[in-house]
Amino acid sequence: MAFRYSRRVQFADTDLVGIVHFSMFFRYMEEAEHALWRAAGLSIVEGADEAGWPRVSATFEYKSPLHFEDEFVVGVELTAATRRTIQYTFTLTREGTLIGTGTLTAVCARRRDGTLESIAVPDEIVARLRAAIESQGG
Amino acid sequence: MAFRYSRRVQFADTDLVGIVHFSMFFRYMEEAEHALWRAAGLSIVEGADEAGWPRVSATFEYKSPLHFEDEFVVGVELTAATRRTIQYTFTLTREGTLIGTGTLTAVCARRRDGTLESIAVPDEIVARLRAAIESQGG
Amino acid sequence: MAFRYSRRVQFADTDLVGIVHFSMFFRYMEEAEHALWRAAGLSIVEGADEAGWPRVSATFEYKSPLHFEDEFVVGVELTAATRRTIQYTFTLTREGTLIGTGTLTAVCARRRDGTLESIAVPDEIVARLRAAIESQGG
Amino acid sequence: MAFRYSRRVQFADTDLVGIVHFSMFFRYMEEAEHALWRAAGLSIVEGADEAGWPRVSATFEYKSPLHFEDEFVVGVELTAATRRTIQYTFTLTREGTLIGTGTLTAVCARRRDGTLESIAVPDEIVARLRAAIESQGG
Repeated sequence: MAFRYSRRVQFADTDLVGIVHFSMFFRYMEEAEHALWRAAGLSIVEGADEAGWPRVSATFEYKSPLHFEDEFVVGVELTAATRRTIQYTFTLTREGTLIGTGTLTAVCARRRDGTLESIAVPDEIVARLRAAIESQGG
Repeated sequence: MAFRYSRRVQFADTDLVGIVHFSMFFRYMEEAEHALWRAAGLSIVEGADEAGWPRVSATFEYKSPLHFEDEFVVGVELTAATRRTIQYTFTLTREGTLIGTGTLTAVCARRRDGTLESIAVPDEIVARLRAAIESQGG
Repeated sequence: MAFRYSRRVQFADTDLVGIVHFSMFFRYMEEAEHALWRAAGLSIVEGADEAGWPRVSATFEYKSPLHFEDEFVVGVELTAATRRTIQYTFTLTREGTLIGTGTLTAVCARRRDGTLESIAVPDEIVARLRAAIESQGG
Repeated sequence: MAFRYSRRVQFADTDLVGIVHFSMFFRYMEEAEHALWRAAGLSIVEGADEAGWPRVSATFEYKSPLHFEDEFVVGVELTAATRRTIQYTFTLTREGTLIGTGTLTAVCARRRDGTLESIAVPDEIVARLRAAIESQGG
């Protein structure tokens, strides 16, 4: 079961090989993550002293290229949640063709005295993200 | 007489036509602007309550394309300074070939009570930028 | 009367000032241009030996900033068409607030023996773009 | 022993949190990879029917953020070379502080009849990349 975010490849996403540049897939994953947060009634950007979500790691496995004007879907799952981190797994497809899969892991952090310190992930956030994924079905 | 900033075209700067994407030239101009500020002993980014420089307008005229790994030079001149704005004019060349010319106009602003208000451009900033341009010759 | 393209600001569109980076507006204009072409039943990218549309000039006037997750509309008009060029004018708004206006001018070109040469803009392309603008109303 | 590529953070690399956007590190790795190829007397982009290097996977582990105008170094090592793939490992540092580490894995491919097919990595390419890493020392 996954949350689904739809996107079209834009001209500036491509490179001289004629396909989407490999770094763009990390932006596509982030766009889908933020769409999930909005569907959950949340925003990843709260007040300046609120929790933030610095990246711990990012990975992508490339299976098939995307081209200009391709429409594709990014599926988002919550695959791990430790006390202080959340991990998403993403599956990109275009009309049934697997484009690739990736992960983003983020730590829950709070700004205190100018520096970021990691804190426990609020239970409510995980609950609302899971509910948004389930309500969209898929 | 102009300040000169050298740059090489990176792979991600290109698009499917095989040339640098037209939006990248605005980033090249900004990189040259900030290199000029550094040469003047300044940084465009000061403390949060300091003067900022929101863009008022940006233009570029395209004459010849740039390709992957091309080395080019961005010449920067200070072509206008009103009480509250600075205008730069940029000339991009690659081994004597004119790539294009552009302008950036920015207003001097200060953050007060959460909003930006335009203020007079500090004389010292203009003087130091002009000195940096002159000392580099060209 | 203008064609309308809707977009949401993504996280990676922003810069350290907390607003959309000024170079992004050139990508927003291009996205709207290509959406207009699709609405006209055309694609800006045809076969390798077909007509292409290198940029001649690009301009933008900034009136009000955009922030993360803002939804905005790009209005597109065809404001000039010489024998060999097309000029679009764009108006960006967010809930009635003017964000800025810009222009893109492109020359119609054909690849011949490895180089691009400018050709007359096909009448049918202009006719179909105008029809797409009119049919969408606004 | 690693090849070293130096870079400065540009304004457009940052996001609203005030640090370099996490997707930029994939571009920094690629820039360092291409600098290594140039140092080896090679270019990653050859004729249209030559070998290309589509990405198989990309990873990055984030340790410490980068800010506007920071100067940093990307160290590049060749950590694996199978018959058809090359893997690079990258280490980013800023004045001794570890910013993060990452990997890129690319498959050697040749365009035949419009599609890409994987081929054996030419021995000479690996030899020249290794020589470029060793000659730079460090």
